[in-house]
Amino acid sequence: MTHKDSQLFEIKKWRKHGRVGEAPGSIIISQDALKPKIVIFSYTKTDLKEEQSDDIDLVLDYAKQYPQYKHWVQVQGIGDEELVKKIGSGLSVNALVLEDITDATQRAKYDEYDCFILSISRLLIHNEQNQIVNSQFSVLVKDNLLISFQETYDEPFAGLKNRLRTSKGIIREEGTGYLMYALMDTIFDRYFALLDQLEDSLEQCEDNINRKPRRQNMFDTQRIKHLLIMMQRAVGPERDKMNEILRSDNPLFSARDKIYFRDAYDHCIDIIETITSFKELSTNLTEIYLSTVNNQMNDVMKILTIISSIFIPLTFIAGVYGMNFAWQDPVTGKLMPHNMPELHNPHGYVYALVAMAVIAVMQLVIFWKNGWFDKMK
Amino acid sequence: MTHKDSQLFEIKKWRKHGRVGEAPGSIIISQDALKPKIVIFSYTKTDLKEEQSDDIDLVLDYAKQYPQYKHWVQVQGIGDEELVKKIGSGLSVNALVLEDITDATQRAKYDEYDCFILSISRLLIHNEQNQIVNSQFSVLVKDNLLISFQETYDEPFAGLKNRLRTSKGIIREEGTGYLMYALMDTIFDRYFALLDQLEDSLEQCEDNINRKPRRQNMFDTQRIKHLLIMMQRAVGPERDKMNEILRSDNPLFSARDKIYFRDAYDHCIDIIETITSFKELSTNLTEIYLSTVNNQMNDVMKILTIISSIFIPLTFIAGVYGMNFAWQDPVTGKLMPHNMPELHNPHGYVYALVAMAVIAVMQLVIFWKNGWFDKMK
Amino acid sequence: MTHKDSQLFEIKKWRKHGRVGEAPGSIIISQDALKPKIVIFSYTKTDLKEEQSDDIDLVLDYAKQYPQYKHWVQVQGIGDEELVKKIGSGLSVNALVLEDITDATQRAKYDEYDCFILSISRLLIHNEQNQIVNSQFSVLVKDNLLISFQETYDEPFAGLKNRLRTSKGIIREEGTGYLMYALMDTIFDRYFALLDQLEDSLEQCEDNINRKPRRQNMFDTQRIKHLLIMMQRAVGPERDKMNEILRSDNPLFSARDKIYFRDAYDHCIDIIETITSFKELSTNLTEIYLSTVNNQMNDVMKILTIISSIFIPLTFIAGVYGMNFAWQDPVTGKLMPHNMPELHNPHGYVYALVAMAVIAVMQLVIFWKNGWFDKMK
Amino acid sequence: MTHKDSQLFEIKKWRKHGRVGEAPGSIIISQDALKPKIVIFSYTKTDLKEEQSDDIDLVLDYAKQYPQYKHWVQVQGIGDEELVKKIGSGLSVNALVLEDITDATQRAKYDEYDCFILSISRLLIHNEQNQIVNSQFSVLVKDNLLISFQETYDEPFAGLKNRLRTSKGIIREEGTGYLMYALMDTIFDRYFALLDQLEDSLEQCEDNINRKPRRQNMFDTQRIKHLLIMMQRAVGPERDKMNEILRSDNPLFSARDKIYFRDAYDHCIDIIETITSFKELSTNLTEIYLSTVNNQMNDVMKILTIISSIFIPLTFIAGVYGMNFAWQDPVTGKLMPHNMPELHNPHGYVYALVAMAVIAVMQLVIFWKNGWFDKMK
Amino acid sequence: MTHKDSQLFEIKKWRKHGRVGEAPGSIIISQDALKPKIVIFSYTKTDLKEEQSDDIDLVLDYAKQYPQYKHWVQVQGIGDEELVKKIGSGLSVNALVLEDITDATQRAKYDEYDCFILSISRLLIHNEQNQIVNSQFSVLVKDNLLISFQETYDEPFAGLKNRLRTSKGIIREEGTGYLMYALMDTIFDRYFALLDQLEDSLEQCEDNINRKPRRQNMFDTQRIKHLLIMMQRAVGPERDKMNEILRSDNPLFSARDKIYFRDAYDHCIDIIETITSFKELSTNLTEIYLSTVNNQMNDVMKILTIISSIFIPLTFIAGVYGMNFAWQDPVTGKLMPHNMPELHNPHGYVYALVAMAVIAVMQLVIFWKNGWFDKMK
Repeated sequence: MTHKDSQLFEIKKWRKHGRVGEAPGSIIISQDALKPKIVIFSYTKTDLKEEQSDDIDLVLDYAKQYPQYKHWVQVQGIGDEELVKKIGSGLSVNALVLEDITDATQRAKYDEYDCFILSISRLLIHNEQNQIVNSQFSVLVKDNLLISFQETYDEPFAGLKNRLRTSKGIIREEGTGYLMYALMDTIFDRYFALLDQLEDSLEQCEDNINRKPRRQNMFDTQRIKHLLIMMQRAVGPERDKMNEILRSDNPLFSARDKIYFRDAYDHCIDIIETITSFKELSTNLTEIYLSTVNNQMNDVMKILTIISSIFIPLTFIAGVYGMNFAWQDPVTGKLMPHNMPELHNPHGYVYALVAMAVIAVMQLVIFWKNGWFDKMK
Repeated sequence: MTHKDSQLFEIKKWRKHGRVGEAPGSIIISQDALKPKIVIFSYTKTDLKEEQSDDIDLVLDYAKQYPQYKHWVQVQGIGDEELVKKIGSGLSVNALVLEDITDATQRAKYDEYDCFILSISRLLIHNEQNQIVNSQFSVLVKDNLLISFQETYDEPFAGLKNRLRTSKGIIREEGTGYLMYALMDTIFDRYFALLDQLEDSLEQCEDNINRKPRRQNMFDTQRIKHLLIMMQRAVGPERDKMNEILRSDNPLFSARDKIYFRDAYDHCIDIIETITSFKELSTNLTEIYLSTVNNQMNDVMKILTIISSIFIPLTFIAGVYGMNFAWQDPVTGKLMPHNMPELHNPHGYVYALVAMAVIAVMQLVIFWKNGWFDKMK
Repeated sequence: MTHKDSQLFEIKKWRKHGRVGEAPGSIIISQDALKPKIVIFSYTKTDLKEEQSDDIDLVLDYAKQYPQYKHWVQVQGIGDEELVKKIGSGLSVNALVLEDITDATQRAKYDEYDCFILSISRLLIHNEQNQIVNSQFSVLVKDNLLISFQETYDEPFAGLKNRLRTSKGIIREEGTGYLMYALMDTIFDRYFALLDQLEDSLEQCEDNINRKPRRQNMFDTQRIKHLLIMMQRAVGPERDKMNEILRSDNPLFSARDKIYFRDAYDHCIDIIETITSFKELSTNLTEIYLSTVNNQMNDVMKILTIISSIFIPLTFIAGVYGMNFAWQDPVTGKLMPHNMPELHNPHGYVYALVAMAVIAVMQLVIFWKNGWFDKMK
Repeated sequence: MTHKDSQLFEIKKWRKHGRVGEAPGSIIISQDALKPKIVIFSYTKTDLKEEQSDDIDLVLDYAKQYPQYKHWVQVQGIGDEELVKKIGSGLSVNALVLEDITDATQRAKYDEYDCFILSISRLLIHNEQNQIVNSQFSVLVKDNLLISFQETYDEPFAGLKNRLRTSKGIIREEGTGYLMYALMDTIFDRYFALLDQLEDSLEQCEDNINRKPRRQNMFDTQRIKHLLIMMQRAVGPERDKMNEILRSDNPLFSARDKIYFRDAYDHCIDIIETITSFKELSTNLTEIYLSTVNNQMNDVMKILTIISSIFIPLTFIAGVYGMNFAWQDPVTGKLMPHNMPELHNPHGYVYALVAMAVIAVMQLVIFWKNGWFDKMK
Repeated sequence: MTHKDSQLFEIKKWRKHGRVGEAPGSIIISQDALKPKIVIFSYTKTDLKEEQSDDIDLVLDYAKQYPQYKHWVQVQGIGDEELVKKIGSGLSVNALVLEDITDATQRAKYDEYDCFILSISRLLIHNEQNQIVNSQFSVLVKDNLLISFQETYDEPFAGLKNRLRTSKGIIREEGTGYLMYALMDTIFDRYFALLDQLEDSLEQCEDNINRKPRRQNMFDTQRIKHLLIMMQRAVGPERDKMNEILRSDNPLFSARDKIYFRDAYDHCIDIIETITSFKELSTNLTEIYLSTVNNQMNDVMKILTIISSIFIPLTFIAGVYGMNFAWQDPVTGKLMPHNMPELHNPHGYVYALVAMAVIAVMQLVIFWKNGWFDKMK
């Protein structure tokens, strides 16, 4: 899907499922998967520690040692089977969950297990190569520990981290339930940002199509629609997810957290409805484009028809008087007065020119009366 | 989206969300936001006071001092962070709600909190620059105090204020629940008015397309559809909102108020269904337009084909008799009787003209039999 | 929406809402509203009185005096504010209901109040000016009194009145609940009659388009679709209404009445489904029409291409032999044998004609092989 | 809807409702209705009697005399008001039900009354005149008596009767509930058979359109869609009907019968989904057809453009050298060397021909580079 | 549906129902049905036996003898009525179920009976002849015995069998409920694999259409859509099926199994949503294709119009000066100075050429100003 001729983003391919018949719960690491980088944020209302680490065991131990802290372990890159398995055994997470985390093509979902929570989202990142990358963002929550997994090294949570560091808002006061909300909310903000960008692109397309439609505008419109279809598939399941969280009685989510999740739910609905209306708008644009092309063709046809209709009869008349019918038998010399007597009329040429002019003017009048000229404006 | 060549309204851009990763509950005032103007209406069944004020603290105190009055504080313009925060602390409203009020891109919603109610609507205003502006209208209700926030200085509630002043209807008898209904009802009336206007525009388009379709009609139709899509997004959530109010057991809404809200709910459904059918009608119009353009092209093609088909063969014949094949070898003087003997026939010219006429008439008859002429009517 | 060139019905404009900000419950009489005519039918199983009256007070008193009778007060024309107000106070109906009855743009609905029932329907009348008029039909039921309001003097209930007069069916045995059903049923019968008519029109269009498509057929199809969209909006809410009546435990509706309402409910669903399928059929027709126009254009193009392709090369050959390259230098008299020797060949003309014929035949064969001729059938 | 030029079935018109305002429960026999033929099957597990009769009273008496038998009375043709009324009084069936049975335009439905069951289905028969006839099939069940009414003399139940006669399957063991199922199942089988036929027709159309699209293929595709729309309207309500039977606790339906009805329900869903997907397929076909016609037009245009573009400039050159500018003033004899000196160049003709050839080849190369020739394959 | 010219898969025809009126529960073996091959896997956590057999009685006996084992009987080919009947009597399965298993056109479904479970799925196999075959896969589960029936000898379960043999995953620990899940999961994996393939095909089509649209791309796109419609019909009912299993309290499904089925349910939803979005994408592609063809036609038209518009007037001028109006009466010798004096102007030819050049340049400038040349890029 490489449209190098366009300024618009490129949509990077998403889905590539595992082998058919693989055992459920098998952890299959894609060859393209990046090596994990681990950052840990441990915080209370008054204290914050931020560290990088390579050893997940140390990290998990650390979390156990400081139960009074809340810990956010951010894993960027999921290309290490060992790490995933260690987390699995450290948190007693079953194999199906680990498979879901490493198979980066999962649909967004929310599952509550006995002792932990799994939440998967699609994270759409517009990277520096102007590509839209549909990556997976998974979150495991167990008590005061939240582990987030993302496929790429992009940092979508810079703002959130700043809030943690500066203790802005209530994030350091609340538990991991609120942290999970804050991550979700950031992801939704990204969707909104992408939609804002798409709205600009749609308006750009509309402007161009209204002013001077080019084939590229059509391709751009369809690419936007393509992305909208993809977004719809990515964000659609988030609604159910939010609903499940809202109805959950898991103690991780305080009543205060629920108010925030309710807000996130509203945002989610807003995103879905916005996608729907943008899809309608892009269908609209396609109709405008097609009708404009049709109109252009109509105008081109009219020009062709006007010029042809005017000159073809005139050319015919000129052709007639270019015929060589003889006025005299070349052998006998007998006069043949019926052969093209006009040619020997002293004003034959003038009459012919006048006749041509009359025909041309008559046609112009007819076309003008039919409104062919004022439509070309 | 500037279509300066059209008489139709222009749709002003709506959505522009905040920064990604901002803390939930942050109050972000857009730079374009207008400075607030405050008007307060305090009324009982028998008394009414109407005042302008700049100091929200005074206003809130005033409301507390006169609990037997109902107070409507109308805030026009939301460009003052201080004011919003004062209201927040004065009414103990949480930060998320204040963010919703100042972020003017919220979806319509209704939230009941412990001690107050938040209601957000989209207010579509057709302003004097012939623009459709999608602004936000928020309402906070706490006991006998209702604060309404709107983005612009437009006055959509002139009629409502008159009813307050003249004590027309039951508005002064009922509480803030009814006042909230009256505000909603006015907003819905605006939707109806806009729909009436759109219906007129659609009919105008249909008339034009039926009489003499122009490219502009197509653009207008699509712009109307664009607005309908936007309206659908704006008014769609109102249905859920009305439903929640109807099912609410909040003491602010008396049984008598509920009858009125039930009426507003019916209006809301009516608006949604009308939008849906108008969208269908505009799709209809697009189809008619496209088929008409196709028909026109067909007619243009027919004219071109008739004229070309008739004259091209005739021109060919004239061309043949314009050829210079010699009747006599120029060097030897030998006669070459096979070379264009027609030219030396005494009636060759007449025969040629007759042949041309016959061909032309035959073609005309064929075209006439195929109904090409009666279709052009 | 005046398509004077068509035989089809014309759709009269429907919606025109009141002023924005008017107090809910204000009775606004449109200036076009007709003066009311009042007819009262009072009947028991054995007795029937039918009277015209101008004084609604008398009528209401009469109904109170004869409680053993059932009374149907038919009000035709709603252009008298006094009358509506008198009914309002006579039956203790609140203002909102009176507003709904006089504002003739209400959506169909059914509301049960403490002591009376309000039912509003849309009544589609195909009048003698070949217009489809979307008028409002409201019914107030209180115990043994039913008052019906309609906007126009058309008489849609002639059959029903005859059944009352002749005591045909069970109408005189049952109460006002059944009378309300009978009115609804008549309205549904009108929808069916209109649908029958539309089906005929659709078939007429389909026949025409299949035989000889004209632009008018397209316009007619779209007008039918327009009406179907309008009907859908009018009849859609009737389903909910029927449902509410069926679930109602109001003593006005006996178990036997409910069987009849169940039947009306089925009719209502049938109407809605029929409208849906007719809309699909008219979309179908539009597709056929467009494809036919495309086909015609294709055929026209083929004719043009065949004639042009055949004669343009021939004309070129004729043109070549019409060139005046000299066989002899006019000054020196030197022979120039390379200049158009064909012209001096004794059979040059014949050869040229044969070459032309060969080219023409070859092209015809190519076109024939490509099936251009058998497609024109 | 007579498309005599097609081999495809013809759709016979269906709907024709009664007069507006007729009393509910009026039995209106259409003038086209056939005179009834009555067959009665009386059977137990071990015994079967099959008789024809003209006297419905005798038949009803017979059913009462032999309560240990199950009786299936098949009435073919509903054109006898007397017969219907006798059945009505014989089984104490109310008038509304009798109206439903005789008004052959009813929507499929299932109603349970105190002492009997009414089931109505649409029966689509592909008759020998290649017409699809949408007729009504009604069933009345009361204890051990089942009366079926069908509009035409077609015999859709030959297989079922054979199973009765040969005691194949469990039909003779079960009661009238199972018999009703067996009738329904046969009707559903007919839908499946029709869908199989439509699938064949759709494939035929697709094959034709892929190989050599003709206008008729388009009409056929649309006629299939027309029938699918009609079928959807006919079979859609059967789902609700099946659902109602499954949830019914009527003793007529044994637990074993319910298993069979559950199967019929699955078939019903299958039919509805198949219709939906066939409708999508026919929309698909329409798109293919339209794109093919567009492609053809494109090819035709290319041929015209290639030939015109090549020969028109050449013809112009030939025209130039056919001009008669004099090389010598005819009166003074003065040489005019600027007038067309090419004509007196010894190789002027050859140069002109070469120039023409170069122009033609250049154009061919350009068209070839633009891929115009390989697209025509 | 043979598109031999395409590289894309071919869709093999699916549906062919039995005869109308056949007794429910009749086992009808299609003539094409393959003779059954039977494989039995008997396993406990520690042991596995795998055998081929021809005698179903032996197999069923074997299953009874070893109740501590779980038995999976894989029947490939359903063309043996005896075998089916033996299984029916061996497991006391009723006739309707046996009919469902042998009639290979069943919709996916899940039915719980007293002592066994029936599950039917559609299995889409992309075979080596590049055909998509829609075959039926049925599963009967009774206690520790699971019998699977498939129509063809294809082996979709190779991976699953390996897991059984190597005891990979938990398959040997769990019961037949889990085995049923594993079969379903494999079928869903096949759907995912097919969707991956379709996504590649769609991207290939999109690339081609963007680069150089060919008619075949359109056909391919539509064929993909055809398959998607078929897949939707096949996989749609699986959702209900999964739901029924999840809500089932059948002891065959342990709590642990339910977690896996929940995962399969998510996959099922994912498949359905992916099909929906792929259908939208293919509609998108069709629009791009059509607009591209329209654009091409527009360009072709422009070339024709440019060349015609430039040369037709020039040819006319050349024609005029090719006319033979005489400058001298051939008989009287009188000069006729009004007849084409230009021809005798010493620079007439040069003037004429200049005039032609001016006209041509003017037209080119007009076309260039209208942007006709930069659109052709």
